[in-house]
Amino acid sequence: MRWIRYTAEGRTGYGILEGDRIREVRGDPFEGHEATGRVHALDAVRIEVPVIPRTFYCAGLNYVEHVKEQAAKRGETPNIPTKPDIGYRAANALIAHGEDVVIPRDATEKVHYEGELVVVVGKKAKHLGEAEALSCVLGYTIGNDVSERTWQRGDRTLWRAKNTDTFKPMGPWIETELDLDAAETIVRLNGAVSTRFPTNHMLFGVATFISAMTRYLTLWPGDIIWMGTDGTSPDLRHGDVVEVEITGIGTLRNRFVREGM
Amino acid sequence: MRWIRYTAEGRTGYGILEGDRIREVRGDPFEGHEATGRVHALDAVRIEVPVIPRTFYCAGLNYVEHVKEQAAKRGETPNIPTKPDIGYRAANALIAHGEDVVIPRDATEKVHYEGELVVVVGKKAKHLGEAEALSCVLGYTIGNDVSERTWQRGDRTLWRAKNTDTFKPMGPWIETELDLDAAETIVRLNGAVSTRFPTNHMLFGVATFISAMTRYLTLWPGDIIWMGTDGTSPDLRHGDVVEVEITGIGTLRNRFVREGM
Repeated sequence: MRWIRYTAEGRTGYGILEGDRIREVRGDPFEGHEATGRVHALDAVRIEVPVIPRTFYCAGLNYVEHVKEQAAKRGETPNIPTKPDIGYRAANALIAHGEDVVIPRDATEKVHYEGELVVVVGKKAKHLGEAEALSCVLGYTIGNDVSERTWQRGDRTLWRAKNTDTFKPMGPWIETELDLDAAETIVRLNGAVSTRFPTNHMLFGVATFISAMTRYLTLWPGDIIWMGTDGTSPDLRHGDVVEVEITGIGTLRNRFVREGM
Repeated sequence: MRWIRYTAEGRTGYGILEGDRIREVRGDPFEGHEATGRVHALDAVRIEVPVIPRTFYCAGLNYVEHVKEQAAKRGETPNIPTKPDIGYRAANALIAHGEDVVIPRDATEKVHYEGELVVVVGKKAKHLGEAEALSCVLGYTIGNDVSERTWQRGDRTLWRAKNTDTFKPMGPWIETELDLDAAETIVRLNGAVSTRFPTNHMLFGVATFISAMTRYLTLWPGDIIWMGTDGTSPDLRHGDVVEVEITGIGTLRNRFVREGM
């Protein structure tokens, strides 16, 4: 099942996507919902960010090749994480499928994409073992963890490198039935494949992260966990269009523009 | 004016605190409000976390003595921040005035308090100069940035060191009129003063942080910014009661307990 959040006729809410038609609901996938009987055409609505998270978690370094390639670019020894220490991103930076990523005037050329699987939490959860960890998951969507690498290296935190407004495209919708082992992440730059990897070839998988996290913290409905990326990105330029596809979910597409151009 | 969020007769909402009486409102300080005409006694309600933030910002290292003392404890050279790089904390960890901080079973003895000024954002804001930066502030409350120092040093991120459930007491209310230059932060451990410092003796003040942050990101109503702490804390033990007072706001009091004791 696919949950989509959208705006039609001035109202924002949730619906269930079937092919290119949306069955409108009252309520949401977290607190409960009922069909209104109304239907919208997908191409007649504005797609919104699928959920504004209560807490925005991010796995950071979670694929071996990405860690090695990023270290190589900096001339450093790769520092492969030995346990699942979760990190954070910020809600201000979220934009929807189809919206523009706006690169600030003073950013360097080192602006990169990171195509990521996003876990959407559906139920409050604490102290979940790995075997039951996925029971709190509502479904999966797609994120692009846009990064300004010069700020990432020079600042004390990742605040503007990762969380500048528009740097976190997410969507287009939430897929509740995904075969993680069969999924592939494919990133296209201006229509040509530039990065691809098996989505589930993570250092620490979704269940491992959720189990480790919920030993100390409570996950809440609407929390999101971005699972990290593999490979590297070329430097992105004004006008570039980046598509992150995860097979079985869909494709998140956003154009990159330089502020003031 | 003091905004308090509380539960009375099974309902949670906002009121205006005058002495020890609460004037109940419909709505909230962010979207608008009107008096209901009902009044509650302060000691008859349960005080709640004053706001569940959209994004939970934290200045981290923002007082010179704290940076120096923390570095000295680790036998390192202090690394004084040279610019206001904001960090993040997580909403799961928030608890209200009067609730217990629960130290996990496997935490070391190195559990510390950090008494902090908390800025509550009242209006959406971007690109604010320093002179106008405080115009987006609704008011101020108090935070205790509880930290497990062994995890803080050993983990790749601050997730459990800073964001374990109950590690972020905040409250008791929001004061809208505070003379920052006159305010003093006083931390008491079991009734005896253990740390005190002028609240506004920060490396980077509230207006400087807001101006720097809003160059890249949009602040939203209900966002909070924890401004960092000065001095150091002794190791906290089962049963310890920590009070963080900021003169002109009030006192945030929480007991620390070890899980399973």
